[in-house]
Amino acid sequence: MENSASTDGGLRERKRAATRAAITVVARQLTAERGLHGYTVEEVCERTDISRRTFFNYFPTKEDAILGHVDDEIPAEVLEEFVAGGRSSPPGEISPTLFRDLVRLSLKLSEHMAASEEETRQLIGVVKKEPQLILRIIGVTEKREAQFARDVALREGVPPEHPVVQMAVVLLGTIARKSSMAYFSDGNTRPYQELLLENISAASQLFSQPFDQPGPADPKGRP
Amino acid sequence: MENSASTDGGLRERKRAATRAAITVVARQLTAERGLHGYTVEEVCERTDISRRTFFNYFPTKEDAILGHVDDEIPAEVLEEFVAGGRSSPPGEISPTLFRDLVRLSLKLSEHMAASEEETRQLIGVVKKEPQLILRIIGVTEKREAQFARDVALREGVPPEHPVVQMAVVLLGTIARKSSMAYFSDGNTRPYQELLLENISAASQLFSQPFDQPGPADPKGRP
Repeated sequence: MENSASTDGGLRERKRAATRAAITVVARQLTAERGLHGYTVEEVCERTDISRRTFFNYFPTKEDAILGHVDDEIPAEVLEEFVAGGRSSPPGEISPTLFRDLVRLSLKLSEHMAASEEETRQLIGVVKKEPQLILRIIGVTEKREAQFARDVALREGVPPEHPVVQMAVVLLGTIARKSSMAYFSDGNTRPYQELLLENISAASQLFSQPFDQPGPADPKGRP
Repeated sequence: MENSASTDGGLRERKRAATRAAITVVARQLTAERGLHGYTVEEVCERTDISRRTFFNYFPTKEDAILGHVDDEIPAEVLEEFVAGGRSSPPGEISPTLFRDLVRLSLKLSEHMAASEEETRQLIGVVKKEPQLILRIIGVTEKREAQFARDVALREGVPPEHPVVQMAVVLLGTIARKSSMAYFSDGNTRPYQELLLENISAASQLFSQPFDQPGPADPKGRP
């Protein structure tokens, strides 16, 4: 499916993406105004000038329409470059550039974020009105993190359950969410990239400090 | 309120804690069996042998009873020792032992966790039956994290908004939750402390790697 955007399929794919985005914009507007049960799928169809059949072609439920299409979060070429970046280090060993490349990837993804800023503000409005949608968002986030763990594992030549892979995915995810919350908070004037880098630097400062690490080199677990 | 546990109040406070815990155990059992709306507060009162009035003395709502009392998560003496540990470093500067002491604190808290293991399994059962309770748990977690940020800030002599304080709180929180999920997952045989330390070590390994940090020393933002 991801490959259908090539050559001839390009225009069709862009049209599909535009329709999909339009459905989500309208569904979010209506939810923010009237709540999840304050409007029908038919009203969304009317406002976007599509049939019911087309609607369900894009989204199985109203909730899915509100959350929008999130599969294609990381552009394929960006992800490929990231995965290829681990090639030079021996499999089974974490590459020394993993953190640097994760930070670069986060910054690259945040450029795309700028384009969807209005959409994110809309989503925040929707969640304020219908907090239970957070459960759906958590579900989507977990799926996306599981997929990204497989990508990082592929790059590093280790299983997705490797602790460094798992920590990379959940901690960078937490930092991105925290930075995004600060960015969208009332009265913020600082750019997202600046907030993200400040948080990444702070995390790096803290986790670079020594700690008591009981391990094979220190059988008593005390320094 | 926290201080009422001293001298004479000690016994009374322990009795209160026992009643409170009993209410939560029963509320969780009934929720796991019948769902949030499948039983009444009166049934909880009958099974715990208390009056309605006593129930509402402890918890404003049924949902609060299910979640239980979480104010007293960090024992006062443990917290005091942690805060005192930052005393030797100059105010405004992050102490070089912050990470080590956060790890020690996490391990200490996990000893208390062992006692409440059955309760946690119950809570997992409850959330599977009533997923919307996750929203309440998120709310409680956010409040607790905000309080802990104030404690860490006090220790470090910096404002709670300091990025290292914020990252310390949310990232250690994320690591603890992730470790806890692994611990309570089906078929796990490893102790919680081992899982926690493995994840902390992995996070430390990743975040100790160098990354491109655009900053005053590097005006172009490129290495």
